[in-house]
Amino acid sequence: MINIGLIGAGRIGQIHAENILTMPHVQVKTVSDLVPEKIKVWAESVSIPNVTNRVEDIFEDPSIDAVLICSSTHTHTDLIERAAVAGKHVFCEKPISFNIQQTKRAVEAIKQAKLQFQTGFNRRFDPNFSRVREWITEGRIGEPHIIKITSRDPAPPPYEYIKVSGGLFIDMAIHDFDMARFLSGSEVEEVSVAGAVLIDPMIGELDDIDTAITTLRFKNGSLAVIDNSRKAAYGYDQRVEVFGSEGQVNVQNQFPNSAELSNGQGVFKDKPQYFFLERYKESYLKEIKSFIDAIRCGDATPVTGEDGYQAELIALAAKTSLAEQRPVKISEMA
Amino acid sequence: MINIGLIGAGRIGQIHAENILTMPHVQVKTVSDLVPEKIKVWAESVSIPNVTNRVEDIFEDPSIDAVLICSSTHTHTDLIERAAVAGKHVFCEKPISFNIQQTKRAVEAIKQAKLQFQTGFNRRFDPNFSRVREWITEGRIGEPHIIKITSRDPAPPPYEYIKVSGGLFIDMAIHDFDMARFLSGSEVEEVSVAGAVLIDPMIGELDDIDTAITTLRFKNGSLAVIDNSRKAAYGYDQRVEVFGSEGQVNVQNQFPNSAELSNGQGVFKDKPQYFFLERYKESYLKEIKSFIDAIRCGDATPVTGEDGYQAELIALAAKTSLAEQRPVKISEMA
Amino acid sequence: MINIGLIGAGRIGQIHAENILTMPHVQVKTVSDLVPEKIKVWAESVSIPNVTNRVEDIFEDPSIDAVLICSSTHTHTDLIERAAVAGKHVFCEKPISFNIQQTKRAVEAIKQAKLQFQTGFNRRFDPNFSRVREWITEGRIGEPHIIKITSRDPAPPPYEYIKVSGGLFIDMAIHDFDMARFLSGSEVEEVSVAGAVLIDPMIGELDDIDTAITTLRFKNGSLAVIDNSRKAAYGYDQRVEVFGSEGQVNVQNQFPNSAELSNGQGVFKDKPQYFFLERYKESYLKEIKSFIDAIRCGDATPVTGEDGYQAELIALAAKTSLAEQRPVKISEMA
Amino acid sequence: MINIGLIGAGRIGQIHAENILTMPHVQVKTVSDLVPEKIKVWAESVSIPNVTNRVEDIFEDPSIDAVLICSSTHTHTDLIERAAVAGKHVFCEKPISFNIQQTKRAVEAIKQAKLQFQTGFNRRFDPNFSRVREWITEGRIGEPHIIKITSRDPAPPPYEYIKVSGGLFIDMAIHDFDMARFLSGSEVEEVSVAGAVLIDPMIGELDDIDTAITTLRFKNGSLAVIDNSRKAAYGYDQRVEVFGSEGQVNVQNQFPNSAELSNGQGVFKDKPQYFFLERYKESYLKEIKSFIDAIRCGDATPVTGEDGYQAELIALAAKTSLAEQRPVKISEMA
Repeated sequence: MINIGLIGAGRIGQIHAENILTMPHVQVKTVSDLVPEKIKVWAESVSIPNVTNRVEDIFEDPSIDAVLICSSTHTHTDLIERAAVAGKHVFCEKPISFNIQQTKRAVEAIKQAKLQFQTGFNRRFDPNFSRVREWITEGRIGEPHIIKITSRDPAPPPYEYIKVSGGLFIDMAIHDFDMARFLSGSEVEEVSVAGAVLIDPMIGELDDIDTAITTLRFKNGSLAVIDNSRKAAYGYDQRVEVFGSEGQVNVQNQFPNSAELSNGQGVFKDKPQYFFLERYKESYLKEIKSFIDAIRCGDATPVTGEDGYQAELIALAAKTSLAEQRPVKISEMA
Repeated sequence: MINIGLIGAGRIGQIHAENILTMPHVQVKTVSDLVPEKIKVWAESVSIPNVTNRVEDIFEDPSIDAVLICSSTHTHTDLIERAAVAGKHVFCEKPISFNIQQTKRAVEAIKQAKLQFQTGFNRRFDPNFSRVREWITEGRIGEPHIIKITSRDPAPPPYEYIKVSGGLFIDMAIHDFDMARFLSGSEVEEVSVAGAVLIDPMIGELDDIDTAITTLRFKNGSLAVIDNSRKAAYGYDQRVEVFGSEGQVNVQNQFPNSAELSNGQGVFKDKPQYFFLERYKESYLKEIKSFIDAIRCGDATPVTGEDGYQAELIALAAKTSLAEQRPVKISEMA
Repeated sequence: MINIGLIGAGRIGQIHAENILTMPHVQVKTVSDLVPEKIKVWAESVSIPNVTNRVEDIFEDPSIDAVLICSSTHTHTDLIERAAVAGKHVFCEKPISFNIQQTKRAVEAIKQAKLQFQTGFNRRFDPNFSRVREWITEGRIGEPHIIKITSRDPAPPPYEYIKVSGGLFIDMAIHDFDMARFLSGSEVEEVSVAGAVLIDPMIGELDDIDTAITTLRFKNGSLAVIDNSRKAAYGYDQRVEVFGSEGQVNVQNQFPNSAELSNGQGVFKDKPQYFFLERYKESYLKEIKSFIDAIRCGDATPVTGEDGYQAELIALAAKTSLAEQRPVKISEMA
Repeated sequence: MINIGLIGAGRIGQIHAENILTMPHVQVKTVSDLVPEKIKVWAESVSIPNVTNRVEDIFEDPSIDAVLICSSTHTHTDLIERAAVAGKHVFCEKPISFNIQQTKRAVEAIKQAKLQFQTGFNRRFDPNFSRVREWITEGRIGEPHIIKITSRDPAPPPYEYIKVSGGLFIDMAIHDFDMARFLSGSEVEEVSVAGAVLIDPMIGELDDIDTAITTLRFKNGSLAVIDNSRKAAYGYDQRVEVFGSEGQVNVQNQFPNSAELSNGQGVFKDKPQYFFLERYKESYLKEIKSFIDAIRCGDATPVTGEDGYQAELIALAAKTSLAEQRPVKISEMA
């Protein structure tokens, strides 16, 4: 039996706990949250025996093997370092931190302690994107030349969140930076951004953007382009295309059903699944399962701390490119 | 807390139990199976406390509210009648029986006992087919004129099963007969069959067919056509199209992913999901949830015993049409 | 230079003449029509030098190599027999006649005269259907088991036409009967029909139907099913699917463009091309080119008189099946 | 009758002449080509009476209303200015010239002479792209935020052509720059390029690139991104997507047929149409028809000299951005 401590029982924390419930020989033993009374009913419904507001109850419990860090981003690196000291494996939500040096130090601490670490880039486990990766790895498109990622949310987050989110690149596009690395198999060398505030001027006043086109140049010479928007009227838009020397592979959005209606006006179908909870349901399950498997078998996790660190470097370069209106080398950021 | 007794823990029985596990305030208390030792490990993994080979342990337990009948078809009607006597609600897999009179009597017994009864036509709960039904009900295609159902299995069942299955119509096409009624909103009046043995001559020697085109005429004058095959090289093929006075709606197969590869040879994607366990995963969950909800709220179940009876009548007419090579009226069968 | 005589300059006759205009070394020399004054402007615009109301002007002109018979169906066989006598190759629109014996005799007359004859089943030349045929012929779906043809018009013809059209089977479904033979590579043995009047009761009063499901059994044991409707709200619906022992191939409708709009309501695209003039534009061109090529090279035409005769036999069996409500053997009709 | 003079009877010149052949009341009266003997047979087949190697035979013929300039790019502006003097309307293939000042002067000369001028941006007439434009104009996606253009050729041109083509931006991407303006309804303000040589190092040695991602910023604040490749293994790849405040619209490639084959390996269909002759067949016809209509009715042409000039400005900015590795303002180029 593997025992898990969950730190932070917000939306994502709850998803992980519910997914663990369906797996044999693993349980969430303790959940720590700032407001434990709010999650008691939920914790009971998913058979978590201990609810606390003290993370020490997790770090000091020798029966707990691993922690899931799902609290606010600013708390992550401190918790990771405490986990390293306490000898707990770590699954940490993205981004690891807002500060590239803190991220580096936290990842290093876990590495020194020879513990498992997984960054929460769940999209790698999406059956669509993982099929794209497989076909690339099998050489079915030859050498990748151009990666195109479409990544648009159905609606902007609340202003309160935007203020503390770290901005579009660190909060939202970081998933796409990881996806670009995941699909490319090469490291990013240079980043160039065209950003805009087209959806809500208030987002601009909060010193963020809501629309961006980001071009990446990889060390192997290939290119990637990501377009982000905070608001797609038709819901979550998450597509990928990879063009290579021998062919091209792409994936489309997922739809709640395939029903198609033809009438005198035209042909109509329902819009895509609304947001990440629907679209990435399966990937969340596979993600946490891969972490448990890594602990159990001692294999490397499929998304390392280095992966979290590299994505943050790209986000940092993107912010710099936006501010200085020029292509920015990753090597300037490290 | 609703307590369930499960009779028969084969593939379908296990699916229902696993789905119930994820629902609050309902549990499978006892499972009865002919070979209890074979299912003990599984029963423990899904937290079923009691495993038995005596159905009496279920019928005589006053705390048990409902039974799921997932045993062999020839045992169904006897078990339904015992459930009626014992005052247990019944969920029964399709077909209810091989004998239309026994089916009628069993359904009537439950009705007299004022208990809930649901027939296991899970496909009604598939998000694709239910969206078709919704759009028809909303009048978006006007009056239905032609219903077309494609229903093909990836591979024929073993000969041993074919011998006792009741044949293609009662074992396999019965789902399609129910789908036709579900989508039409009218009752079938006449059935006409063209059948063939094209896949495996041994199926013909077992007095069954492996390929069929069945035409239905409804009381409202509209038509339906179903094509069945026991073996589609590309997996499970389950599609529906409804053509009406104002438009047409159709649904396609479900695919494991949307990845599409273009190269010098053409455009390629993975084949559809392999069989019913993958394709109807979501519909099985919704099906059993609807039964639990009906017990809890006292509402009618969404698929009644009458629905099971009507589908069997159509299957019987189809067998007769095949044997006598003529259109057969449902009224001849009742 | 090949010289053509066109008999009947209605919609179809004009299409053929316009297509011939674009081909080198062939010209329509004379057009004969009941009301020549109505077509003079058109004839000039497509460079046809002679306009007449006397078919003799065509049959007696020794420089004319071939005739296109595009006049009313009841005139066809007489014209074919005169062409046989006059030594002109014949392209004849479908159906060849309303009387199977007349059709047989006319086809035989051309055969005895060792002239070319092509029946106007243009759909065989559609790039979609011809690709299906190619893949079947290459063995890519193994042995065909089930052929499914959807064939629906955007609107019923005028009552005046319905009165003289010969009915849904001989006027409309005859194309589908030919398509079934074209794709199957086997001959039809038995026909079974379920027909209905669902669109317009007046069509019933004119002793026709507007909706039909026709099942065909081929000599090789395989099956086909055709569904016909006189009125699809969304335009011309012309699709085919062939299911075989090793796979399945299908073609969809053609659309005027591929634009797809996603918004808060769903996903929307334009309806399919409206009717045969748009959908079969390319097939009409290829059809008449194949006839000219056959004359030039002395090869067999790709759609023979026998093909026209066989499709009429099936139509006749379908009418009989509808009237007598039973499966009808083709051998009963010959 | 409108009389046309064709200058240059290469591939594109021949397409225009063949399309004019099908239109009433317009003819190509004279064709001028460097090697007239090579085109005599072709000219006869499309009924062009005069073949010459002297453009004066066109400019000095008072019966000629308009010229189609389809010769090499370096000859364009001189011919345009001679047409202005001779009082002939001009249809000119893209690009107008390799020199932005020459382009400006030539366009101005025609304007002063109050003659019609159309630049050969045929893609605007493609039924797919024009439907996208219509829906944008109708406000169906709200305000455009992001335009995405995919534009990939099936194979690089010969080295000899690359040497004189003006490079990827002026030869190939200029179509995409025009498409971006056509769809946006705003003018480009800034261009930023990431280019690479990934297909053939020799292209790099010829001082060109074969792969590019170009980001455009429009005056209205919106963004566009274009990805170009000289070699797509699966043929011509020409797609567009426009994302706006209220929705998104996109168009896909065109396929030679819709046949889809499912078997044990997966689902397969033919690759898209190979190159521009197939893909843009319809747009070439509509393009030249629009030019003839403009002459006939005196309306403005749908693609003006200004449109040609603006696209060249963007190409020039793209070349500069590539060379200097920075975002470049259009205002720097004018």
